[in-house]
Amino acid sequence: MSKDIVWHEHAVTKEERARQKRQKPCLLWFTGLSGAGKSSIANALDQALYHLGYHTFLLDGDNVRHGLNNDLGFNDKDRIENIRRIGEASKLFTDAGLIVMSAFISPFISDRRLVRELFPEGEFIEVHVNTPLAVCEERDPKGLYKKARAGEIKHFTGIDSDYETPEAPEITLNTADYSIQQCTEYLLSYLSKKGMIAPIAKAS
Amino acid sequence: MSKDIVWHEHAVTKEERARQKRQKPCLLWFTGLSGAGKSSIANALDQALYHLGYHTFLLDGDNVRHGLNNDLGFNDKDRIENIRRIGEASKLFTDAGLIVMSAFISPFISDRRLVRELFPEGEFIEVHVNTPLAVCEERDPKGLYKKARAGEIKHFTGIDSDYETPEAPEITLNTADYSIQQCTEYLLSYLSKKGMIAPIAKAS
Repeated sequence: MSKDIVWHEHAVTKEERARQKRQKPCLLWFTGLSGAGKSSIANALDQALYHLGYHTFLLDGDNVRHGLNNDLGFNDKDRIENIRRIGEASKLFTDAGLIVMSAFISPFISDRRLVRELFPEGEFIEVHVNTPLAVCEERDPKGLYKKARAGEIKHFTGIDSDYETPEAPEITLNTADYSIQQCTEYLLSYLSKKGMIAPIAKAS
Repeated sequence: MSKDIVWHEHAVTKEERARQKRQKPCLLWFTGLSGAGKSSIANALDQALYHLGYHTFLLDGDNVRHGLNNDLGFNDKDRIENIRRIGEASKLFTDAGLIVMSAFISPFISDRRLVRELFPEGEFIEVHVNTPLAVCEERDPKGLYKKARAGEIKHFTGIDSDYETPEAPEITLNTADYSIQQCTEYLLSYLSKKGMIAPIAKAS
């Protein structure tokens, strides 16, 4: 056993964890209608950052609803608690030095504000995926709009439940007019300009 | 903007995240009485792994009780939910490819078993910090035993609430007979033997 291993009583800091990863931690909070392209963009950004050597994690319905939040339903109280826990979990991930992406409809301004307030200035990046409702409904990748229109799903965002448009999101994207690749490159450029990651090499 | 950035529709996998970090993810679950040394050992291990270049995170009362679990009290139902959420959050951290340490009294076999069952074989490492009650009470770093003996705190583990000894923990440590440094070196050796981290260089 090495005798060279040393440590201190204090905990490893967020700054040390981030420095080790050559990045600054942040949370990219993707909000928008079902079918807007939140998960597609977040996954593409995750892939791109991974291939550039950055340390990331993605929270979405797939890994949160069946685990951490599997005790929550879809009434108002549970929807608020759902977003609160995702915000707090995201915060732990930034404390671990990671660049985190969270992709949830999160239709209410008040819920998103509570998450924003958990983070230091500049670490919470609200990304409004502002694809028009008509386009989302036309895509209907999970058949949910059809069910909502038929009354089989109640309180469906955009149909019989409001989506409150972000008042001052850091970034607005629209997958009706721009490709996933274009959106991803825009996000990489943003992260680079804000110093979260190193400058992105320009293609000659 | 680089044209070389490529990605795939599939999500970045746990294996890819771990490979990037040159480690295998796992959860070291520290259980034991208040004052047993759980947090001290976990922090020392965290420091040691950090200085060896590994990517880790530590969940403990300091960062969980005031955030993710700030809605929970100390009745039986809330204590179970507290441990469940910590288990699920830990799982997300191993999905991110990290080596995670969780330091909580977690006195009940059933709760610890539920956490263990969230993980693939070998990824959940139960570390029983088996420091004798008399030593913990003598240390009483937060003055909690004194308050419990005086009846000012009810349901205090070891005094008027049971601590259920782990039946088959992967590791048992005792900070009455071994130093924090010795315990940490033992854990590093274990992680190395199990292939979670590279072989530790021996001092000549």
